[in-house]
Amino acid sequence: MTIQAKFERMGTDAAPGQEVRQQVGDIETLLRGAKLEGRQVDFSHGDVDAFTPTPGSFEVFTAGVEAGGKQAYTEYRGDISIREQLAPAIAEFTGAPVDAADGMILTPGTQGALFLAVASTVAHGDKVAVVQPDYFANRKLVEFCEGQMMPIQMDYLNVEGQAGLDLGQLEDAFKSGAKVFLFSNPNNPAGVVYSRDEIKSIATLASHYGATVIVDQLYSRLLYSGVDYAHLRAEAIDAENVITIMGPSKTESLSGYRLGVAFGSKAIITRMEKLQAIVSLRAGGYSQAVFRTWFNEPAGWMDQRVREHEAIRDDLLKAFRASEGFKVRTTEAGSYIFPQLPKLAVSGKDFVRILRLQASVIVTPGTEFAPFSDSSVRLNFSQDHAAAVAAAERLVALVDRYRA
Amino acid sequence: MTIQAKFERMGTDAAPGQEVRQQVGDIETLLRGAKLEGRQVDFSHGDVDAFTPTPGSFEVFTAGVEAGGKQAYTEYRGDISIREQLAPAIAEFTGAPVDAADGMILTPGTQGALFLAVASTVAHGDKVAVVQPDYFANRKLVEFCEGQMMPIQMDYLNVEGQAGLDLGQLEDAFKSGAKVFLFSNPNNPAGVVYSRDEIKSIATLASHYGATVIVDQLYSRLLYSGVDYAHLRAEAIDAENVITIMGPSKTESLSGYRLGVAFGSKAIITRMEKLQAIVSLRAGGYSQAVFRTWFNEPAGWMDQRVREHEAIRDDLLKAFRASEGFKVRTTEAGSYIFPQLPKLAVSGKDFVRILRLQASVIVTPGTEFAPFSDSSVRLNFSQDHAAAVAAAERLVALVDRYRA
Repeated sequence: MTIQAKFERMGTDAAPGQEVRQQVGDIETLLRGAKLEGRQVDFSHGDVDAFTPTPGSFEVFTAGVEAGGKQAYTEYRGDISIREQLAPAIAEFTGAPVDAADGMILTPGTQGALFLAVASTVAHGDKVAVVQPDYFANRKLVEFCEGQMMPIQMDYLNVEGQAGLDLGQLEDAFKSGAKVFLFSNPNNPAGVVYSRDEIKSIATLASHYGATVIVDQLYSRLLYSGVDYAHLRAEAIDAENVITIMGPSKTESLSGYRLGVAFGSKAIITRMEKLQAIVSLRAGGYSQAVFRTWFNEPAGWMDQRVREHEAIRDDLLKAFRASEGFKVRTTEAGSYIFPQLPKLAVSGKDFVRILRLQASVIVTPGTEFAPFSDSSVRLNFSQDHAAAVAAAERLVALVDRYRA
Repeated sequence: MTIQAKFERMGTDAAPGQEVRQQVGDIETLLRGAKLEGRQVDFSHGDVDAFTPTPGSFEVFTAGVEAGGKQAYTEYRGDISIREQLAPAIAEFTGAPVDAADGMILTPGTQGALFLAVASTVAHGDKVAVVQPDYFANRKLVEFCEGQMMPIQMDYLNVEGQAGLDLGQLEDAFKSGAKVFLFSNPNNPAGVVYSRDEIKSIATLASHYGATVIVDQLYSRLLYSGVDYAHLRAEAIDAENVITIMGPSKTESLSGYRLGVAFGSKAIITRMEKLQAIVSLRAGGYSQAVFRTWFNEPAGWMDQRVREHEAIRDDLLKAFRASEGFKVRTTEAGSYIFPQLPKLAVSGKDFVRILRLQASVIVTPGTEFAPFSDSSVRLNFSQDHAAAVAAAERLVALVDRYRA
C-alpha cells in the first residue's frame, strides 16, 4: 500500500474536537425550521471547566518545574519515583501486582499508551480482534499498523447485566489466528461494563489461544452505584499476555496535562519504551509530576465526582426515554451515553451537523465507533449539569423535527 | 517481519538518558587506575538547571491552566491562535511563508514532529536517504516504518565551510528510487551547518527527482559568530516537497514542556494530523501556551545565551585539541560537539561506560549516529561552564590512560 492510500483510510474529520475543520457544504438545503437557542454544549469531550482538575494538581506541576532538570529529563518510561508511588495504588485498584521498574510506562495521555501498545504487538498483516462499537482510534491504530481487523460484535442494546460481547466470534477470531484482542472497559461509546463472567471468558479464551489482550480501562474509576467491575489482569491469565491502560485524564479532568500509564507484560512494556523513544521521547517531564495526585485525591472528592456524574446520567436517560423511538442503555461507568435515535429523514452524520448548526449541540457520530451505528450518537456528559440537560432536550426536539 | 524481530532491531540501551537501564556487567575487568573525582556532568542532554527556561514561560503556562477547557482541548494540530502567533515569526526566521491554518502542526516535542513526518511519508519498503552520522532516531524511525535506508555519508572532519555531504551518493539514492531525504541542520551530532551551496544542491536534486525532504532544524537559532545559515524551504524547491521541524525545546531550555512544530507541505501536515490523532491526540494543551514565549524572548536574551554557549564551545575545543590524536570539528550551531578520540585499547562503547564509572562523565557513543563512528563521542555542552570544562579535562585524562 502506498503511504497516500494508507492515510486516505484514516479519516479524522468527524473525530471529536475536529468540527472546526469540517466544511459546511450543502447542509443548508436539508435544514428544517429555525435555530433553537441555548448555551452551546460540546459533548465531544468532557468540560474541564464544569468538572475541574484534581485539587493540588497545579501545585505539584509547579513543584515539578521547580525541580528543574531532574523532572524535565526522566527515563523514557517515566520518572522512577513516580512509578514507585503509583505501582502499589494501581495494584490495589486492579487486584494484581504491578512492577514499577519493569512492568509500567508513563505516556503522553492514554492515547499515547494505546498507540504504543498496538504498535508494539501488531505487525503488517497480523490479525487483530476489535470490538464494534468501540473507541474509534482502535480501528485506526490497526489500520496504521497494517493489521487485519476482525470485528467482534457487542450487542449492548439487547442484553442486561453484561456488555453483550459475542464470545463465539471472539473464539473464531482466535482460532483463525488473531494474536491480539483490543477493547475498552467500560466500553467507549456505550458506557457498559463487561460482566465478571465475560471477563473470565475473555481470560480463558486468550490463555487457551495464547493471545495478547490490550484493555483500555480509562474510565474504570467512574463506576456507578451497584455495578460490579472485574479487572481482566486479576483473572486467570498469564500476566505477560495482558497490557492494561489507564490515566488521570478523564474522571480527574487532567486531560490538559496529557498523562497515561500502561502496565503489565514486561516484554511488551520494553517494546513500548523503545517505541516511545522515537515517537515522543517521554510524557512531558513536568506533567509527570501531576501523577502524584492520582489515587491520592482528597478524601471524599472522587465519591462526590461519581455522584455528580450519576445524577447527570439519570437526567439524560429520562430525557431520551421520554421520547418515542429512542433506545438507550444505562451508562454503568464513565461519562459516555450512546443513544440510538429513531428513524430520521436525514443520515446520522448529517443530523450531527444539523444539531451543531441548529441547536449548538456537538456530539460524535456513531459511525466513528462501528459501521452499523449510523443511527446512534455519543455524548460525553461530563458537563455542567443544567446545560447538559437543556442540550439533551434540544437534541430530542430536533429529532422530532427530522423524524422520517 | 514479526513484531518481535522488528523491535529487536530498535535498541535504546545506549540512547541518551537511558544509562540507568544498562547493566554494568564485566566492565570491571577492563578498568585501569582509580576514579577521577569531580562533579558529575551528563552530556547526554542539556542541563536546564544551568541554562534555565525562557523568562515568562511558567507564567504563560499558568495562564493556560487558568484558561481551562479552551486550552486543554485544542484542534489536534494545536490551538489556532497560537499557530497564528507563531506563523509570521517562523516565516520571517526561515525566509518563506508559513500557513497557520493548513501548513503547520504543533507536536509533543520535535521528536513527535519527526515521528509524524517520517510515518506520514514512508511506507513499508520505501527507500529513504538518511545521513551518516545523524540523529540516532532517524535510522530507528525508518526501521519502525519498515523503510529501506540508503545511507549518505557526511565527511564533516575533512572539509571546511561545508558539512561535507556526499551529493553524488544523494543523487544516486534519488536515482534508485528514494522518495524521502531526512537530515538535521545543524547536524546532530557533529554540530556542522550545511553550506548555502549544499542546501541549494539538495533543493535542486530533490526538485529534479520529486523527492520529499524532511529537515530537522531544531538547533538553528543557536548559531555562532560568522556562520551563514541557509534555510532549505527558502530555496528553489516546491513548498509541498518540504517539511521543516523546529521547537523551543533546546536553545530555550523548554524541553520539560515537550513542544515541537512542523511546517510546510499542506498534504503532509494533513496526514501528520490524522496520525497525531491516534498517537498522542495533541501536544499537551496547557504546554502549548508556552509557545507564546517563542520568537518572543526578552530583548538581548537569546544573544546572551548564544554567546555563553560559544564560550563553552571554545574552551572544549581547546581542551580536546591540546591532546594528541583528537580530531574535532568546530561546532557552528547548536550545543553538540563530536570529537573523534585517538586509538584506544578498549572499544568506544566500553570507553563510554568507563567514562561514566571512573570520571562521572556521561556522553553518547558515536555508534548511535553512524556505524563507523565507534571512536567518536557526542557531548551536549549546554551545561554549567566550569563543570563542563572540568569534565572534558577528565575525559582527556581517561583517554590518555586507555590509549592503545
